[in-house]
Amino acid sequence: MVIPVEDSTDPRIADYVRLRDVDLRKSLEGGRGLFLAEGEKVIRRAIAAGHRVRSMLMTAKWLDRFADLIDGDGDGDGDGVTVYLVSDEVMEGITGFQVHRGALASMERRELPSVAEVLRGARHVVVLEDLVDHTNVGAIFRCAAALGVDAIVLSPRCADPLYRRSVKVSMGSVFSVPYARLKDWHDGLAELRDHGFRLLALTPAESAVPIEEALTGERTALLLGSEGDGLSSRWLAEADQGVRIPMSREVDSLNVAAAAAIACYLLTAAAR
Amino acid sequence: MVIPVEDSTDPRIADYVRLRDVDLRKSLEGGRGLFLAEGEKVIRRAIAAGHRVRSMLMTAKWLDRFADLIDGDGDGDGDGVTVYLVSDEVMEGITGFQVHRGALASMERRELPSVAEVLRGARHVVVLEDLVDHTNVGAIFRCAAALGVDAIVLSPRCADPLYRRSVKVSMGSVFSVPYARLKDWHDGLAELRDHGFRLLALTPAESAVPIEEALTGERTALLLGSEGDGLSSRWLAEADQGVRIPMSREVDSLNVAAAAAIACYLLTAAAR
Repeated sequence: MVIPVEDSTDPRIADYVRLRDVDLRKSLEGGRGLFLAEGEKVIRRAIAAGHRVRSMLMTAKWLDRFADLIDGDGDGDGDGVTVYLVSDEVMEGITGFQVHRGALASMERRELPSVAEVLRGARHVVVLEDLVDHTNVGAIFRCAAALGVDAIVLSPRCADPLYRRSVKVSMGSVFSVPYARLKDWHDGLAELRDHGFRLLALTPAESAVPIEEALTGERTALLLGSEGDGLSSRWLAEADQGVRIPMSREVDSLNVAAAAAIACYLLTAAAR
Repeated sequence: MVIPVEDSTDPRIADYVRLRDVDLRKSLEGGRGLFLAEGEKVIRRAIAAGHRVRSMLMTAKWLDRFADLIDGDGDGDGDGVTVYLVSDEVMEGITGFQVHRGALASMERRELPSVAEVLRGARHVVVLEDLVDHTNVGAIFRCAAALGVDAIVLSPRCADPLYRRSVKVSMGSVFSVPYARLKDWHDGLAELRDHGFRLLALTPAESAVPIEEALTGERTALLLGSEGDGLSSRWLAEADQGVRIPMSREVDSLNVAAAAAIACYLLTAAAR
């Protein structure tokens, strides 16, 4: 069903308000149990992963591309999705000053699996502690998917993989890589160890072992810390070993997404 | 010298106009031979690399942090830099809707070295063909610096490493990694081969060799293609070998910055 909407404050499109206001979106999306997917590829991946579409928002030029969803053939439940059709001006008012390049879908969140569920059968796991940047979270999911990491575990405060920017940067990998969130930060790593995982803490510290020398275990969890400070001293102490990516110059460093790419490549190399 | 400026259209701060308008900035910066550095760390790295400061733009809270530059002790030539002091409102009007987190400096560009100059003595080189995203260019420079890539060569149309976003994402690595720009796209790679470099083309093609098997030469140039289409057929044909990063699932891929991180790590591993 296609419903024209002419006013950006129309309550029917309230799922999409103030897209560039990160704090507002966090509380809104959590409160309503939704997330936004952007662009055809990502929207279709979200649907394929079983997420239900609450509604879509687009300008007229995109209608044909989503005809199957509007007719109800493409979204799995046989009901057509509701599309709110807006002008370029309204779309731009909603999405901010950069002209938006596609359609948006508001999707229902599902309950996350437990940590035990995502660890079952996994060999190579990445654990993210308190990352704040949604671009980095999305980039790490994309790497994990491409390189065959089995699951991702998030600290309680780690940025949301279903935030619009994460979803977009991940190219929808947040729908294909199983992930769970620890309930407890302080003692949360014990659950990974109980499942037989060896915990490697990625750190730039000179005293750490070069990562390639440490990738010997059957089940390995790679711990990655936040952008500014890296891993907390608590998690560094809890890990079985500190590992580092050898660098050429002491003054330079890798950002967490680049470090994750290299570490995930090495972590899963033997299994690919 | 600190000069208060109250109007964002004041011609004295014309170096800083419309910071978020990429197209306008490209032609303005090229035409005037300048680039912008953002934030104390990056500004100081630019100065340390020998770039002269045209002027700086900041709000009052940053003056103390740059006192040495204003007094003329910190910028190498003994003359104090000219600082245009603006209110938060003027700064926000110039930098766009996200509140800006620091000072800006307008710096003079210098003539780039020739390709031959940056290749001299280099063993591990990265060649970027037509990247369009300044974030990716900056990220690749940061990786190259951290992992010990000796030089970067850009195709004639590759995005500018001195564009503000590239400089920022690179954390100033664009000032420490030597780079040059090819004058000729079609036959430009011949110059690398003339210098004894083996040309490896990074591609997702199944027919390519896993990259670790191909890193055997003394002097190696790794060719990376643009975000959408990858390397051109011309450069793929010109390369000595196509190489790929083994992936776990065919539907997923790595973005160019993540692929570059992994490839640079492998390229320089023996030398670190």
